Amino acid sequence: MLQRIIVLAFLIMTATACEQKQTAIESSGSSSQLLLSTSGINALKNSDNSIINQATESLEDKVQEILIEPVIIPQPVDAGGGYSHEKHKRNYAELYQVAISYNLNPSDEKLTYVKEMFDGYANMYPTLGMHPKDKENHPGGKLYWQGLNEAVTLFYMIQAYDMTRDFMTEEERAKIESDLLRPMAKFLSVDSYDVFNKIHNHGTWSVAAVGMTGMVLGDDDMIDRSIYGSNKDSKTGFIAQLDHLFSSDGFYSEGPYYHRYAILPFIAFAEAIENNRPDVKIFEHRDGILRKAVTTLLQLTDEQGRFYPINDAIKSKTWESDEVVFATNIAYKQYKDASLLPVIKMMNKISLTDAGAIAANAITDTTEDFYERPSMFIADGVDGNSGGLSLMRSPQNTAGQLQTVLKFSTQGMGHGHFDRLTLSVYDHGNEIIPDYGAARFLNIETKRGGRYLPENKTYAQHTIAHGAVVLDQKSQYKGNVKYSEEHVSQLVKNDMSNDRLQVTIAADTMAYDGSKLSRSITMVNDADITNRPFIIDLYHVDSNTGHQMDLNYPFFGDIIDTQFDYNRPVNKTVLGTDNGYNHLEVLAKGSPKPNSTNSQFTFLQAQRFYSITSVTDPSTELFITQTGANDPEFNLNLQRQYLIRQPSGSKNHTFVNIIEPHGFFNPIQETVTYPKSAFSELTHEQQGDYDVVTFKIGEEIYLYTLSRKRDGKNNHTITFNGKSYSWDGPHQLIKL
Amino acid sequence: MLQRIIVLAFLIMTATACEQKQTAIESSGSSSQLLLSTSGINALKNSDNSIINQATESLEDKVQEILIEPVIIPQPVDAGGGYSHEKHKRNYAELYQVAISYNLNPSDEKLTYVKEMFDGYANMYPTLGMHPKDKENHPGGKLYWQGLNEAVTLFYMIQAYDMTRDFMTEEERAKIESDLLRPMAKFLSVDSYDVFNKIHNHGTWSVAAVGMTGMVLGDDDMIDRSIYGSNKDSKTGFIAQLDHLFSSDGFYSEGPYYHRYAILPFIAFAEAIENNRPDVKIFEHRDGILRKAVTTLLQLTDEQGRFYPINDAIKSKTWESDEVVFATNIAYKQYKDASLLPVIKMMNKISLTDAGAIAANAITDTTEDFYERPSMFIADGVDGNSGGLSLMRSPQNTAGQLQTVLKFSTQGMGHGHFDRLTLSVYDHGNEIIPDYGAARFLNIETKRGGRYLPENKTYAQHTIAHGAVVLDQKSQYKGNVKYSEEHVSQLVKNDMSNDRLQVTIAADTMAYDGSKLSRSITMVNDADITNRPFIIDLYHVDSNTGHQMDLNYPFFGDIIDTQFDYNRPVNKTVLGTDNGYNHLEVLAKGSPKPNSTNSQFTFLQAQRFYSITSVTDPSTELFITQTGANDPEFNLNLQRQYLIRQPSGSKNHTFVNIIEPHGFFNPIQETVTYPKSAFSELTHEQQGDYDVVTFKIGEEIYLYTLSRKRDGKNNHTITFNGKSYSWDGPHQLIKL
Repeated sequence: MLQRIIVLAFLIMTATACEQKQTAIESSGSSSQLLLSTSGINALKNSDNSIINQATESLEDKVQEILIEPVIIPQPVDAGGGYSHEKHKRNYAELYQVAISYNLNPSDEKLTYVKEMFDGYANMYPTLGMHPKDKENHPGGKLYWQGLNEAVTLFYMIQAYDMTRDFMTEEERAKIESDLLRPMAKFLSVDSYDVFNKIHNHGTWSVAAVGMTGMVLGDDDMIDRSIYGSNKDSKTGFIAQLDHLFSSDGFYSEGPYYHRYAILPFIAFAEAIENNRPDVKIFEHRDGILRKAVTTLLQLTDEQGRFYPINDAIKSKTWESDEVVFATNIAYKQYKDASLLPVIKMMNKISLTDAGAIAANAITDTTEDFYERPSMFIADGVDGNSGGLSLMRSPQNTAGQLQTVLKFSTQGMGHGHFDRLTLSVYDHGNEIIPDYGAARFLNIETKRGGRYLPENKTYAQHTIAHGAVVLDQKSQYKGNVKYSEEHVSQLVKNDMSNDRLQVTIAADTMAYDGSKLSRSITMVNDADITNRPFIIDLYHVDSNTGHQMDLNYPFFGDIIDTQFDYNRPVNKTVLGTDNGYNHLEVLAKGSPKPNSTNSQFTFLQAQRFYSITSVTDPSTELFITQTGANDPEFNLNLQRQYLIRQPSGSKNHTFVNIIEPHGFFNPIQETVTYPKSAFSELTHEQQGDYDVVTFKIGEEIYLYTLSRKRDGKNNHTITFNGKSYSWDGPHQLIKL
Repeated sequence: MLQRIIVLAFLIMTATACEQKQTAIESSGSSSQLLLSTSGINALKNSDNSIINQATESLEDKVQEILIEPVIIPQPVDAGGGYSHEKHKRNYAELYQVAISYNLNPSDEKLTYVKEMFDGYANMYPTLGMHPKDKENHPGGKLYWQGLNEAVTLFYMIQAYDMTRDFMTEEERAKIESDLLRPMAKFLSVDSYDVFNKIHNHGTWSVAAVGMTGMVLGDDDMIDRSIYGSNKDSKTGFIAQLDHLFSSDGFYSEGPYYHRYAILPFIAFAEAIENNRPDVKIFEHRDGILRKAVTTLLQLTDEQGRFYPINDAIKSKTWESDEVVFATNIAYKQYKDASLLPVIKMMNKISLTDAGAIAANAITDTTEDFYERPSMFIADGVDGNSGGLSLMRSPQNTAGQLQTVLKFSTQGMGHGHFDRLTLSVYDHGNEIIPDYGAARFLNIETKRGGRYLPENKTYAQHTIAHGAVVLDQKSQYKGNVKYSEEHVSQLVKNDMSNDRLQVTIAADTMAYDGSKLSRSITMVNDADITNRPFIIDLYHVDSNTGHQMDLNYPFFGDIIDTQFDYNRPVNKTVLGTDNGYNHLEVLAKGSPKPNSTNSQFTFLQAQRFYSITSVTDPSTELFITQTGANDPEFNLNLQRQYLIRQPSGSKNHTFVNIIEPHGFFNPIQETVTYPKSAFSELTHEQQGDYDVVTFKIGEEIYLYTLSRKRDGKNNHTITFNGKSYSWDGPHQLIKL
């Protein structure tokens, strides 16, 4: 499992390749080969741009705090979270900040600090064997229990050295290079050959660190091995990583939380390559995959700029993360994509690099405070054929944007969740039907050292923790990562060409043996029908044998109304015994009202009303559950779920639901508007591969017809109530 | 129980007494006797003030919407929430808005609308008997099931009439006055004599409505009865209400939620009196009690401007409520209190009155966006001798203000909670140790018509729902409002003269027979000791007989660490059988660690860490509980509590706790600072009326000594560890 690294500040510097060497600090020149050039330094030093000045002033404040403390380089003994581990991490971050600061605002004190730090590490490094705890977190390092931290350390150290070596003596440089930088690069690329040549973000940190070291030391072999792999055959190395770790649409299968982390070595090393090896044309590679990697990451956010917490993710992480600030700056510098400027403006901070200065200076008074989030399908897989994410978004207006995420991407390795065809819903930047994210309190030592908690595997990764369908209380793909990695879901149909009516249909045939799962999500934006957009959610299960089928809707908020009958159990009742069911307490068990073919559930979240209207039958069971069962350490977040169950024995079933935001509670004015669902008399009928749905709003009846055929046929006809209805395209919604 | 009224917009108009009558609209003159004069109209019409223009444009937009709909005046048949009830409420609010709008921006359409509305009501009113449902919500009305709504209706109607009668014919006026306004005033003041003469906010609405009617119709008798009571002897009426409904410090015993509502008729009628009867000098009355009523209300807020939800309160109500906007405007006009201007600026809206225009124009570029909330004691009781609220606040800085509310005010009538000596804590505008507020979903029909829910009486009003001590699982004052109303708590000591060390000591001897309760809350602000302020909470119970004693700390957030042992019950366990205990499920039951004299509980709320460090002994029991037991309709909000129990048999006990905010989790930077409590080795010793507390922070030991004597003696000495310590004033905190 990846031990996450806290990087205190990413203020990476860069320099164009052939700067003229200058030794006088006053002329603002270093011979930097990496990310901050003389012109960048001048742009940052002599600016009337408030974002730039804020960034440089903030750096100076931090550096003044750093300089108060003595340089301490402890013997590496502790595991992650322990003193020596955390201290080495702080050291490289602070070294890096002081090095930038020395270029912007030189002082003897800063230079002394930098030299002392380098000298100390150069003294220690040759004496180190493998870290005493490396077996616990293999592949191991020397300064840390895992090699990843070592790569990140060199990534920052080489930049700090790049920016300060001109101000050192020949002798000082020789010692640092021969006793610290070359040995670290050798450890990472030769001793740790496997990681260096792995198609994995750990490999990216290694090649970025070693490659940049080659550029600073003028070692072409090091550079070539980093870009093209140890064998220089392009089967491994940076380019191979670029080719395999991002989907054709720039999606990173672990999800945006790790995407955000991985983007840093990718974009930084690419910028260094562009400066030192412009012939590679790295930013044009694979049709500009680095641009897609950045823009796709930015799009994977709710209206507050928070990343969708799919797979293992810490919630509340936003695009204001330093890595994203850094990445957007370089992406803007390279691609001049004006759509990035509103994001950079809203971040209101930059990286202290050439790119940061260029980005800050590109912002004008007319740059909008608004980032456009249109509907889009993001394909997963190198060729774009391995499922993906459907992001459906209503037009942005003052009532806020309704967003759905239909997830049917690949497993995402060890950080993936078993949740193909999961739906999550966001409205006005709030989580309505949420993804649970990871069971982890990051960096909080009392919570098992801030690592992933046991409940991450026993609950968060399971299917039932999501807005998904579970058969027979078992997670998809037998809960087996390897097995799940081998299979992909399919995009059946996607049409977002028309705001009024958008649809994505996705299918999976391997999650459960002998069962075909298919889900269509339709978003309707039509002010003539409802005051807010709504979602039609059709989930088909077709199976050879009978199953218990559970469709789960996690929700946040207060239960306001239930148009079904329920009882609250007197004794403690847990929903099941394993696969995450063991963590859910049954708060209420219900059944549809007699003689009713619909059930309805209304909740209030963030002062807005939402309803789920469902087609149900007398056999349907309805549950309201809550996390917290079998949670001895209070590790689970409080989360409630509305679960619709078709009992054992069903072979084929369609879950038919309409999810609708419909009203507001204003606690200041004490007014309530539209507290009740607009929908009634919801029906569904399957005619071959056609779905025929009707519902009533007020006195009007609407007919929604959808073709789930893959045949590419564009013309469809069904018969309903003895009358024939035809349409072009995937679907139609009309008033009857 | 008071059926709360939704008032859609309070944009009351006022006029100085002796305006010259003008009939031409173009000259902007009406003969208004009430709240908006010709000069006010001109100030609102010809303004370059953005707040004013926003307010007038917003009014015009609303009025254009109103004018689209036909005037409909239904027969009064429905109870609260029903059609006729809600329609009549909308009618007066809209009539009032159109009347203002006609003065600012006249059109025939607006005048026709006003005349049609008045004419319709004048036709209907004489035909009405008592409302068919009046028995359900006595004292009843004619247009509504309760008389209160009738008073509020006249309050707005008379203002609308005041602003438009100049544009009516003699005949139209005669009909409205004789068939509608005089009959309504008679119904409210003569037929409903008891309410009119009650010292209660319902009476205030009545006298305000009738008194303003007298001013507009030139009826001195009506005015006199309103100001001095039906018998004109000042034993009832407006002045008597002013004398008895607010404490000497302007506190309203039902709490800020109802204070906010009641302030409107007080301040509006006062303004009308000032305009029509300046000799009364109403704003000087009782040492300017109306000023105190407004400023005290504003002070009863957290850093987000949300009212402390003590007693029956809907949460999230802020000072942006229209009633408060209105009240601050008039208070500023009358008292020119510059401390109100930042609030008015932050509200960014005004009432459309003379006062609103004056307030808006008083705001300058130098008006701060910052409201000072100092520590203060707010006395309850007409003479200030009936307990009160201690508001302790740390200095305001970027880390946010720590606020404590120690509540020991009077019961607050039917809307009061049995929670003398309750502590609640707010930090940086977030609820940390919260008050539950009311069990009610206001105006949400599916939640029992939006009325108070049964759980308000079975849970929210009980002692255990609060940060209070409960003896023997019984609520204070036997849960009897009348009994509680008869007794008051006492302020023992209060010293807020020094930011570093502030203390309030409060006592109650009647909440439990034969038991003396006393609580001292000390706030320490000393950067040499801790990075954030902290709270020392000492709660003494002295009793003749043995009791089970429960100190309860409701909390919001995730449980991060527990320095005590606990088990989570396998079966459902409810904390008790009545007095609110029946609604609490036991999530965990614990006991102090063996050989430890302290227990510690750490939680994370709004990305900040908080700890409660407690002196415990081997008999202490610790519970973590959660609302939700015996809650068949999911009416209770999810709320957790940390409960410290001394088991049955204790006669005297001191609960010794330190409550401390101490760290931050930054999900964007993924950094954690100070996640652990700074405190250890907490001890307490009682020496007569002296508390002697020690604790350790890092390697330092601190001694806190407090005198609980009422003797006024200012010089104290105790002996600790064989050494003598002396201090001046109530308390001392020193490093040993």
